[in-house]
Amino acid sequence: MKLYYGNMLESRAGVNGIAIRDIEALEGRIREIDARLKRDRAEGRLQFMDLPYEPVNKIVNIANEAQGCENFLLIGIGGSSWGSIALHTALSHPYHNLLHEDERGRRPRFFVLDNCDPDEFAGLMDTIELDKTLINVVSKSGATPEPMANFVKCYELMKRATRGYAEHFVITTDEDGILMRLAAEEGFTCLTIPRGVGGRFSVFSPAGLFPAAVLGIDIEKLLNGAKYMDSICKNPDIWQNPAYMFAALEYLAMTGKGYNISVLMPYSRRLRHLVNWYMQLWAESLGKEKTRDNKTVNTGSTPLKSIGATDQHSLLQLFNEGPFDKTITFIRVVNYDNKVELPAVFHGYNELDYFGGHTMEELIKTEQFATQLALTTHGRPNKTVEIPEIDAFSIGGLMYFFEVVVTVMGELLNVNAFDQPGVEEGKMLTYALMGRSGYARGEIMRDEGEFIIGEDDG
Amino acid sequence: MKLYYGNMLESRAGVNGIAIRDIEALEGRIREIDARLKRDRAEGRLQFMDLPYEPVNKIVNIANEAQGCENFLLIGIGGSSWGSIALHTALSHPYHNLLHEDERGRRPRFFVLDNCDPDEFAGLMDTIELDKTLINVVSKSGATPEPMANFVKCYELMKRATRGYAEHFVITTDEDGILMRLAAEEGFTCLTIPRGVGGRFSVFSPAGLFPAAVLGIDIEKLLNGAKYMDSICKNPDIWQNPAYMFAALEYLAMTGKGYNISVLMPYSRRLRHLVNWYMQLWAESLGKEKTRDNKTVNTGSTPLKSIGATDQHSLLQLFNEGPFDKTITFIRVVNYDNKVELPAVFHGYNELDYFGGHTMEELIKTEQFATQLALTTHGRPNKTVEIPEIDAFSIGGLMYFFEVVVTVMGELLNVNAFDQPGVEEGKMLTYALMGRSGYARGEIMRDEGEFIIGEDDG
Repeated sequence: MKLYYGNMLESRAGVNGIAIRDIEALEGRIREIDARLKRDRAEGRLQFMDLPYEPVNKIVNIANEAQGCENFLLIGIGGSSWGSIALHTALSHPYHNLLHEDERGRRPRFFVLDNCDPDEFAGLMDTIELDKTLINVVSKSGATPEPMANFVKCYELMKRATRGYAEHFVITTDEDGILMRLAAEEGFTCLTIPRGVGGRFSVFSPAGLFPAAVLGIDIEKLLNGAKYMDSICKNPDIWQNPAYMFAALEYLAMTGKGYNISVLMPYSRRLRHLVNWYMQLWAESLGKEKTRDNKTVNTGSTPLKSIGATDQHSLLQLFNEGPFDKTITFIRVVNYDNKVELPAVFHGYNELDYFGGHTMEELIKTEQFATQLALTTHGRPNKTVEIPEIDAFSIGGLMYFFEVVVTVMGELLNVNAFDQPGVEEGKMLTYALMGRSGYARGEIMRDEGEFIIGEDDG
Repeated sequence: MKLYYGNMLESRAGVNGIAIRDIEALEGRIREIDARLKRDRAEGRLQFMDLPYEPVNKIVNIANEAQGCENFLLIGIGGSSWGSIALHTALSHPYHNLLHEDERGRRPRFFVLDNCDPDEFAGLMDTIELDKTLINVVSKSGATPEPMANFVKCYELMKRATRGYAEHFVITTDEDGILMRLAAEEGFTCLTIPRGVGGRFSVFSPAGLFPAAVLGIDIEKLLNGAKYMDSICKNPDIWQNPAYMFAALEYLAMTGKGYNISVLMPYSRRLRHLVNWYMQLWAESLGKEKTRDNKTVNTGSTPLKSIGATDQHSLLQLFNEGPFDKTITFIRVVNYDNKVELPAVFHGYNELDYFGGHTMEELIKTEQFATQLALTTHGRPNKTVEIPEIDAFSIGGLMYFFEVVVTVMGELLNVNAFDQPGVEEGKMLTYALMGRSGYARGEIMRDEGEFIIGEDDG
């Protein structure tokens, strides 16, 4: 992997770029942070960093057994689903679920319920036969209402569909959470997420690895990529450490330049859900009201997904000409799995006859380069993470890389990157309104009547 | 449809909200804009607004013939694809492509090539048989490189696959563009987009209507929804016109409060691509360097997609606790197509046993309400567009609504909402690098060697 950051700098992006001296000024803090993180890790407080070194035999064994099924259904939300979705989209066939059985081999079709949308739920139940489905319920707490609603409903339906219903559930949960107890009572297979690992940092735990293994993704290779990246990101010198440099540049863009939007733009459709995983990691870790010493800061930049080349025809106009409020990070792929040679047809049509002798790979790479150049010309700071190809090794490396980046950003911003106090209030309200015991409905009023326009069209 | 905007106001969102007097101060400008738009429309300069009144017989007839095929492949990008994708995702079965033939009836499977990603292209070619596929190439200009690359490749492959290849193409393009000429030569069926209608405002032209009709979506009902919305959005009084109020609130949030991010958060997975359509419409129309009188402004707020309830576990932490730089617009659905009754199981488990007697519809609606309340409590301005249900009528209305909103926003910001000068530069560079005749390669340098970290992992 390479990080190109020249286009983030004043020398290229002009007044909107970052000054080298501002990076230099961070050198000392980065060294301190590096030392602190290493100490925290050694003392077991950054458990997610060591996940790639855990044995995976149990996961592989259960996955091998599970592969016999026609459908694999993941029930989870947020950190319990984005990692698996990202891995599947990046590393399975782009039309996996539509492949014939013999092309898929032992890999089941893959489905996710990551909402509590009744239309989605009903649509899925039209589509799959439950007695041919393995359901993996992923929830650290065992209390999050959306996955639990999907779980109880699937449990009811599975019980109706087959006597051996218990064999159709694998529960991935906290070491001694309530779902462990339930699984023991019901006879469900159980996998555990280490207690100290938060949902959004759990992709290298059974939360992400078990679905990946069932889908036939080489999880050893994935973990090797993560370990390789770990070795790269240990260097205390910001000039030698791509994760530290990435974090420092984003920090300087946010605090020094006031850029509050951070765009991630891979040039591959296969990486589109990796960006969703990244957005969750970034937004939930860094969007915080208070610093660790309880100062009110309301900090955090907003991650934005953009897919190249598609979004050149959607968001790029705004990136090039809108306010100077963004950094753009490209993910560039050196070798795509396919080239796709383009033919010389429609001679005499200037708009169509120049493709001959080129490949589609060449076109998408050219577009990435042209976009990067245009942005730089418009004074828009941008950087590029380059990966040699899209395989389990690169993706493992990339995800580990972003986990380190976000951890270091948390340190630079002095916020707790591992909690999410801002979502508790809505959750409590939901419990109360749904009548969960112990949560009072209290004085919740639905008073929004005064300012309305429009009427129902009946 | 209803617009609830009370939570945007000072009275609810506190100092971060909009003052009623600031809305009042815009009343006059809104009346002027209304008069100008009505004049422009009467004089044929806002053609997209009249699209819902055009006859659709030709589209319906060609669509009826086309429905015999197994696969429908749309080749298009940006404004030529997001509209169709949005309609399909909102109004077809959520697992349309996986339904059995007899469940789909005459509706073909739906595929889109909206990138120039060689892995996506090759993956699709593994999946579909071209001789059972109708290809709809949608391009206003007939020159955009990504769809044209997909087109020439599909043309080559289709010619190999079947002698009657010409019958497998329907071209949707500009009234007298180069693709019209080509289609005549090749014997392709042709549909036209009126010259004055830009790509991102073309969903109610054959660009959006033909794919929708092939997919069995009731396009008459869709257009009726648009016409209904047109009647609602004609009122010159901001207090009676939801599109004018929406635009005014966003304008005041941007210019008065400095909020540069505008979140659209529907509580339905079916509306996820409607948000992508909206993002393109918003970003490309409003993200502009210059005003119409050539003043440099670098304006435009950044649209952000968030899907409820899923992204409560991803972005909500940032929305509730991060910087005060956003407005949030919910899309609330009153009646989902399905309820999904939840069972009372796992007695004694407080986290799981409270669902009995409730439905999944109730849960997702409760979550929307709880999130809105939590945001308001945190002083985060938000508003809600409520639709009675997700059907062709509502979706037609919603899309027309947002087209009017963006048009009015363009007027308030004094920018040309209908051009996209900021994407030309990258396009020219791409042409030059790909060797299209008439585009000089010139002095394009790939100089990014100095600031790199990392190495290939070989």
